[in-house]
Amino acid sequence: MTDPRLGQLAERRLAIEGIDPEIDGGRFPAKAAQGYSFPVEADVFGEGHDVVDAALLWRRKGSNQWTEVALEFEVNDRWRGEIVFPEIGDHEYTVIAWRDLFAGWRRDVDKKIKARQAVALELEEGIALVREAARDPREPGEGAALADLLAELDRQPDEAARLALLLGEDAAALMKALAPRNSLTWYERVLDVIVDRERAVFGAWYEMMPRSQSFEPGRHGTFDDVIKRLPYVKDLGFDVLYFTPIHPIGKINRKGPNNTLTPTGDDPGSPYAIGSDEGGHDAIHPELGTIEDFDRLVEAAAAHDMEIALDFAIQCAPDHPWIKEHPEWFDWRPDGTIKFAENPPKKYEDIVNVHFYRDSIPDLWHALRDVLFYWIGHGVKIFRVDNPHTKPFPFWEWVIGEVRSQHPDVIFLSEAFTRPKVMKRLAKAGFTQSYTYYTWRNLDWELEQYLTELTQEECRHYMRPNFFANTPDINPRYLQTAGRPGFRTRLLMAATLAGNYGIYNGYEICEAAALPGKEEYLDSEKYQLREWDFDRPGHIKDDIRLVNRLRREHPALRDFTSLRFHKVSNENVLSYSKGTPQSGSYLLFHVNLDPHQAQTFHFEVPLWAFGLPDDGAVKVQDLVNGNSFAWVGKNHTLTLDPQARPYAVWRLLGPVTT
Amino acid sequence: MTDPRLGQLAERRLAIEGIDPEIDGGRFPAKAAQGYSFPVEADVFGEGHDVVDAALLWRRKGSNQWTEVALEFEVNDRWRGEIVFPEIGDHEYTVIAWRDLFAGWRRDVDKKIKARQAVALELEEGIALVREAARDPREPGEGAALADLLAELDRQPDEAARLALLLGEDAAALMKALAPRNSLTWYERVLDVIVDRERAVFGAWYEMMPRSQSFEPGRHGTFDDVIKRLPYVKDLGFDVLYFTPIHPIGKINRKGPNNTLTPTGDDPGSPYAIGSDEGGHDAIHPELGTIEDFDRLVEAAAAHDMEIALDFAIQCAPDHPWIKEHPEWFDWRPDGTIKFAENPPKKYEDIVNVHFYRDSIPDLWHALRDVLFYWIGHGVKIFRVDNPHTKPFPFWEWVIGEVRSQHPDVIFLSEAFTRPKVMKRLAKAGFTQSYTYYTWRNLDWELEQYLTELTQEECRHYMRPNFFANTPDINPRYLQTAGRPGFRTRLLMAATLAGNYGIYNGYEICEAAALPGKEEYLDSEKYQLREWDFDRPGHIKDDIRLVNRLRREHPALRDFTSLRFHKVSNENVLSYSKGTPQSGSYLLFHVNLDPHQAQTFHFEVPLWAFGLPDDGAVKVQDLVNGNSFAWVGKNHTLTLDPQARPYAVWRLLGPVTT
Repeated sequence: MTDPRLGQLAERRLAIEGIDPEIDGGRFPAKAAQGYSFPVEADVFGEGHDVVDAALLWRRKGSNQWTEVALEFEVNDRWRGEIVFPEIGDHEYTVIAWRDLFAGWRRDVDKKIKARQAVALELEEGIALVREAARDPREPGEGAALADLLAELDRQPDEAARLALLLGEDAAALMKALAPRNSLTWYERVLDVIVDRERAVFGAWYEMMPRSQSFEPGRHGTFDDVIKRLPYVKDLGFDVLYFTPIHPIGKINRKGPNNTLTPTGDDPGSPYAIGSDEGGHDAIHPELGTIEDFDRLVEAAAAHDMEIALDFAIQCAPDHPWIKEHPEWFDWRPDGTIKFAENPPKKYEDIVNVHFYRDSIPDLWHALRDVLFYWIGHGVKIFRVDNPHTKPFPFWEWVIGEVRSQHPDVIFLSEAFTRPKVMKRLAKAGFTQSYTYYTWRNLDWELEQYLTELTQEECRHYMRPNFFANTPDINPRYLQTAGRPGFRTRLLMAATLAGNYGIYNGYEICEAAALPGKEEYLDSEKYQLREWDFDRPGHIKDDIRLVNRLRREHPALRDFTSLRFHKVSNENVLSYSKGTPQSGSYLLFHVNLDPHQAQTFHFEVPLWAFGLPDDGAVKVQDLVNGNSFAWVGKNHTLTLDPQARPYAVWRLLGPVTT
Repeated sequence: MTDPRLGQLAERRLAIEGIDPEIDGGRFPAKAAQGYSFPVEADVFGEGHDVVDAALLWRRKGSNQWTEVALEFEVNDRWRGEIVFPEIGDHEYTVIAWRDLFAGWRRDVDKKIKARQAVALELEEGIALVREAARDPREPGEGAALADLLAELDRQPDEAARLALLLGEDAAALMKALAPRNSLTWYERVLDVIVDRERAVFGAWYEMMPRSQSFEPGRHGTFDDVIKRLPYVKDLGFDVLYFTPIHPIGKINRKGPNNTLTPTGDDPGSPYAIGSDEGGHDAIHPELGTIEDFDRLVEAAAAHDMEIALDFAIQCAPDHPWIKEHPEWFDWRPDGTIKFAENPPKKYEDIVNVHFYRDSIPDLWHALRDVLFYWIGHGVKIFRVDNPHTKPFPFWEWVIGEVRSQHPDVIFLSEAFTRPKVMKRLAKAGFTQSYTYYTWRNLDWELEQYLTELTQEECRHYMRPNFFANTPDINPRYLQTAGRPGFRTRLLMAATLAGNYGIYNGYEICEAAALPGKEEYLDSEKYQLREWDFDRPGHIKDDIRLVNRLRREHPALRDFTSLRFHKVSNENVLSYSKGTPQSGSYLLFHVNLDPHQAQTFHFEVPLWAFGLPDDGAVKVQDLVNGNSFAWVGKNHTLTLDPQARPYAVWRLLGPVTT
């Protein structure tokens, strides 16, 4: 070929485009979960009227062996297939397409026969295609079956018999399997996909501060106290137990109760002011225990089939050891003082930020990676990362890549509450899960709009929401006045709208006392020890047990993107479904968003999803109280009273057969 | 750096993503026109609260000198800028972003001053930024102005004066121009853009068959006859005169009138059956004239400020010279006959298709390219390509690239009426313009939906519609029964909805006689000579002159993507605007889509576009009859009678000043 551009272009005869997912032209990987379906779509077509066929190829990154999965034609040149990855780790995928000459021959001859045209020459052309395939089968050495077909054709008594044989399903299947792929075209790019373990997409989190787990007034909690709390958390049904930072707390500029600047000597300070003469990010706050205690705690949690998640908060207290050891990692002012964190005019006197460039590259980056490796070495596989949006994106892309290359089972949760594109960029850069705006989406249209974005738009391929219903930093305004009914509905929605969700302790007893006018908790654990009474009247532990059990028992709740909203007649009621009738797991939800008044509404039973007419009937199970019955006809009315029954969860089992 | 991945990632500290246009991850070029605005948008942001700034860079492909254009922040991390390319040819563009430390300093100090915080240290830090910039200015040798600023700061009597100077606009402008760009980040890709001449995006086409231009019964028209018709076409206001194929017509299996298979010896055959013993694609049908006659015709057209467009139809008649010279370019059947074109069960007995692969690479591709070069050598710079969707996409990408590399002023119009993604792929592969579904979009919602796709979706960056109101192949069903009013409105809409539009001769006299039940013309010129009477009563030449004059006089009509639809109270009426009040060219259209009945409707004058209240008034010019007046208030009523006034065109000039 004397014309390299011609040759290069000619190699890709068919059009393969519009691959979904393909994040930013392949710049970032898509995300999948082990054992879950990873659907891929593509536009595939050739010129003219040729019959084309297409397939999905995937492999572990680094392997040279592709696995092929069929793509099926859907509509308008769109094809779809799905991969179920058996292993975690970095994988890649691409799309191939080819012209299926024999299928095209078959289609055309069929049309000609129907139009009563002569097809004697066509028969010869068809046999020639088989002969060619037998000579050069796609799988070397597999030509025998095609040779048999040729012999069989020879044995037929006449043209009609030969034609019938060659137009038959057996010949078609044989040729599809063995004929060379004409104009085989590879998509231009090989795309990355990260395959995580299930906990990346599906987990229930419980957040606590270990220091408040002593349940004795004034006594600092220890890891041993936390070990004693494990049965409680397990009984509620959680998968992940997440601790705010457990490192030594700075002694300089400590905060007092309710974020005051006037602490007394006894005040423990904020655990987010990390580091003192007692150590930094790889040390344990002495009052919590030792590393051996921590190891025992991790083991005890595992024995309860739970995992410990740690907080990775990069900021340092002014007495963090790094400040002396690595002054070049920090900002110094013209007067020789260190620069505190600030967001003018706000100042954060108890912490200083590292800077990531200048003389910090690569040592600081390596040191932070090594902090993660240290805790991974002690059995921690989940990190909730504090404020990642104030650290450079390349750092996250690098450090998460470094960790994943050795520990593909490690999970990073991004605690970024900031502008939407920044949150999405962090997810693209590698975070396994992301905090969301859930706590600020309370109205029906807000929830529908936001969840539609999360479950239907491109971000579904790389950003997995973790719906925390509250956090130590967020005492949601809605819950400050909603009372117990609001806690119950916000719990239910968090647990069923998203794959991952969490609560911060106190939620189970509807704790809502706020700093006046703020979304902060009064007497926040962030600045003082607390003693909790988790048996306080009005608790919602039964709801928590229920939602976590429903999550375990119903596959629909593992299927984030199957979420669909349903119209009801009352804007105070949210209705949605998860799963599909076809999958055998199909749940319908009704939630009264008004925590104060009973709301009555008309709703439609999605009979159409079962292919039923409007007067059909489906078997239903009420998953809250357990009884079973039938819904007959499409239109129904329901009242949800916030005190008695703020939400309803139905399993639609299928048509009533008479 | 011992960690190359770290270094590579760290280089791109800021996020630059969501570039628009970026076609298929940069796989295909966007398209622009010389002298027209080429807007580019991007998401640009950094971590935390840094102030970022961004710019667009562009250059001719092959140049090593970038030109910078500012990007302006719009909303939600989105930035926008525009390039006006002064020259045609292949260009490229990308986006850069950086942290503006001085702007961030200024913002923070301002906030602190407002909060009455001390800023003495901040002043020192600000001066340090200036000092650093003076030492290492962005433009080498330009540090003097910064040194002057430093000296000026030194001369100030006190801190307040220094602060005032450093916070001033002059210092800000100087630092913006000269301070080094911190964390300068380049977008990962450099993107291609093809800059065409204006005729690519804005032209009025008139299509004819030269052989029917004698205007004498039975006499085959010649190029000299066409030369005599030039003043007529020019008077109507067209820019491009497009001929169906002018090559020798096959003598074997010629078609007779109305596509019959029983021609007589006199029948001229279809000009799309190209090639005979008289020559192939680089020859002229002898009855039309010689190549010298053709050259004179091209020159004569140029003298009328018009261009000749030729048809590039790759199929061959069975007696095309290539069939003997290059049998390997064709499909042969087992009985030694050549395979005719077919789309089973339809057969096209007068043409055979080349095939583009096997032994045709590269010779056939080169031969076809050379056909184009031959006609380019004879002054043809516009090719309408017949049925490009039945030829491989890579061929088009290659051949259009080959032609453009030597003749960037050549225009290719894709005549593909097929599935939407195929049509878009051809545009991406290089076609300058595309035929569309316009002839089949007749209802208000159809037109609005289709035009919204064409003008607002991503395809606007690479696919330029050419709205032919009819073609030799399409005698639209709507026009078969609409009569003169329908011809007038379909003309107006073609000419004003799209940048490029065209009519095929006969349209001006409302020719609509059809083969019964088909979209084909009766006695089509494709198969026989016709004599036209373009002065036939009921012609619409005044409308044609009007719309072509409006196109020349009103910049709004060059601005394809400014199209907006407006609501009216009657679904038989389409209302849309082009241009903007700000640009000084803002047109409003009302079209009665019902060719049979007068339609009355209420409409709103877009007073809001001028920032006027609902009781405001705008000066208006009726561009059909020329009178001027004022519209007072938002709500108006109009009746459009198909016989008298099927459409209205208004220029909105601006607020009435009292």
